[in-house]
Amino acid sequence: MVSDLLQEGITAVEEKLRSVVNSDVTVLEDASLHIITSGGKRLRPRLVMLAYLAAGGQNLEEVIPMAAAVEMVHTATLVHDDINDHSLTRRGKVTIHARWGRTFALLTGDFLFTKVYQMMAPYGAPYNIIMADACSQLVEGETLQAAAAKAGKMDRETYKKIISLKTASLFEASSRMGAMLAGADEEMVEALREYAYNLGLTFQIVDDILDIIGDPEKLGKPVGTDLVQGRGVLATENGEVVLEQLEEPTVTAVAESDPLQEMLARLRESGAVDVARMQAIEVAERARTALYRLPPSPARDEMESLIDLVLNRDR
Amino acid sequence: MVSDLLQEGITAVEEKLRSVVNSDVTVLEDASLHIITSGGKRLRPRLVMLAYLAAGGQNLEEVIPMAAAVEMVHTATLVHDDINDHSLTRRGKVTIHARWGRTFALLTGDFLFTKVYQMMAPYGAPYNIIMADACSQLVEGETLQAAAAKAGKMDRETYKKIISLKTASLFEASSRMGAMLAGADEEMVEALREYAYNLGLTFQIVDDILDIIGDPEKLGKPVGTDLVQGRGVLATENGEVVLEQLEEPTVTAVAESDPLQEMLARLRESGAVDVARMQAIEVAERARTALYRLPPSPARDEMESLIDLVLNRDR
Repeated sequence: MVSDLLQEGITAVEEKLRSVVNSDVTVLEDASLHIITSGGKRLRPRLVMLAYLAAGGQNLEEVIPMAAAVEMVHTATLVHDDINDHSLTRRGKVTIHARWGRTFALLTGDFLFTKVYQMMAPYGAPYNIIMADACSQLVEGETLQAAAAKAGKMDRETYKKIISLKTASLFEASSRMGAMLAGADEEMVEALREYAYNLGLTFQIVDDILDIIGDPEKLGKPVGTDLVQGRGVLATENGEVVLEQLEEPTVTAVAESDPLQEMLARLRESGAVDVARMQAIEVAERARTALYRLPPSPARDEMESLIDLVLNRDR
Repeated sequence: MVSDLLQEGITAVEEKLRSVVNSDVTVLEDASLHIITSGGKRLRPRLVMLAYLAAGGQNLEEVIPMAAAVEMVHTATLVHDDINDHSLTRRGKVTIHARWGRTFALLTGDFLFTKVYQMMAPYGAPYNIIMADACSQLVEGETLQAAAAKAGKMDRETYKKIISLKTASLFEASSRMGAMLAGADEEMVEALREYAYNLGLTFQIVDDILDIIGDPEKLGKPVGTDLVQGRGVLATENGEVVLEQLEEPTVTAVAESDPLQEMLARLRESGAVDVARMQAIEVAERARTALYRLPPSPARDEMESLIDLVLNRDR
């Protein structure tokens, strides 16, 4: 069963993530384990493993460090994001910077990133080139987002570029590397790359929708965070309008009315969420089409159900 | 002439550093260029190139990206250090976080680190394993330092571990990788590794001395910064004593007397600097001894004069 195999793989990835952050420097290991053991959907490692299996890979063990590495990239960026966003909770737990302070959070993010590098290095040049490019794009995406938020101006084009860089690029790299390691031919690598890229876009659009209509309990973090940071542009036809109306809720305002809650309510009623939802469905279909270029296999089926999972998730 | 060749190499490294940070995301490119073009001694790339030449390497071009990468690691850590230390100037210029703010400084540091990864990836597994380990150690060293400073307690053993991890490890990796790329045998790689490791220790001890007795004008940054951060432990027989006496200068105190200036004066008079100086000379001699295990060559001579340069620098 692919799902059993996958579950074994995820268990091995979790173990790898925990063991690789071993350090004499206690605070680094503690803070790293804090975020690593806080759950997370492990979507990116799943992608590495499924692409490997779908492309005919026979020895799942060989992809474990790679699968752990892509999850670690994601984890490292979460730690730094939480510093920049002043977030206090993540996955229902207190954030590293809230618990250990900014200096150690910054260093922990750096540390996790060096662990990505350590886990990837043995795979050799072609894989490391792909991973390095994905990491660089990810940082570009985060920065573009911060710059747009600061300028208080984000159009659809910029939004698309941001989600492509900050999310889809790592999904893409995960799937591509997994396929390559299984020795897939160029056509198959390309189909798996395209699938994952569009799955990444789907994931991020749904993420941004959940920031507006999600249940904070299920998400393990407050909603509206992206909106407050000036990033909740997706759900409207014209992002600028939203951003003009948005200001950080002030202490005085909270007593009478909460501008964020009002904003969220307005957005929910505006139909903007439905537009975003349609876009998510559209890119999800692109992922499905790419997937159908592969020969049928249990791994392909699993990848298809991943699309629905990403599209219909509530957390 | 080795020195001419080296100068050409450094020029190529500078060009590589500038071109690799090219990005559509303007703020990343601007902030990156700001720190890259701010000077710097380029010691680590020099080490890569000299080790390569000393080990008989014939085509300096092949080490340029590697030499640029080790400088980039150093540069990335400076950007993040300046955030954590709240430093306003670096190499006589305003720091990135002072000019672009903390969010963009954090992201620029991350971006530079992805550029290290991009430049190194093509060299393949053995080199990337060494580089990844050095990066990881560097972050461990920075963290150990921050933890000791926070605890207000640092002994000689911890200090030695810190400078070994945060400085000597990257020096060591630079020299080792350069030698390996030239196809040096194990014995030669080991001699060059040992040389660079001890040169790194020398460099850091001198750096800490300059933080106490240096000329702020020449250094391009204020002195006493490390002391204020609780890190200026080196120059005493027993670090704890210094740290107990040290507190951040308060606004009220400045009017009558400046505790930092008093502290610096006390340290200068205590003979502690002389003790540190002797330690620097000792590790410098270890570097020289390791170097003498190599056959004589113009590159070896240049590496020897680097020891004196590092030991006797005033900036």
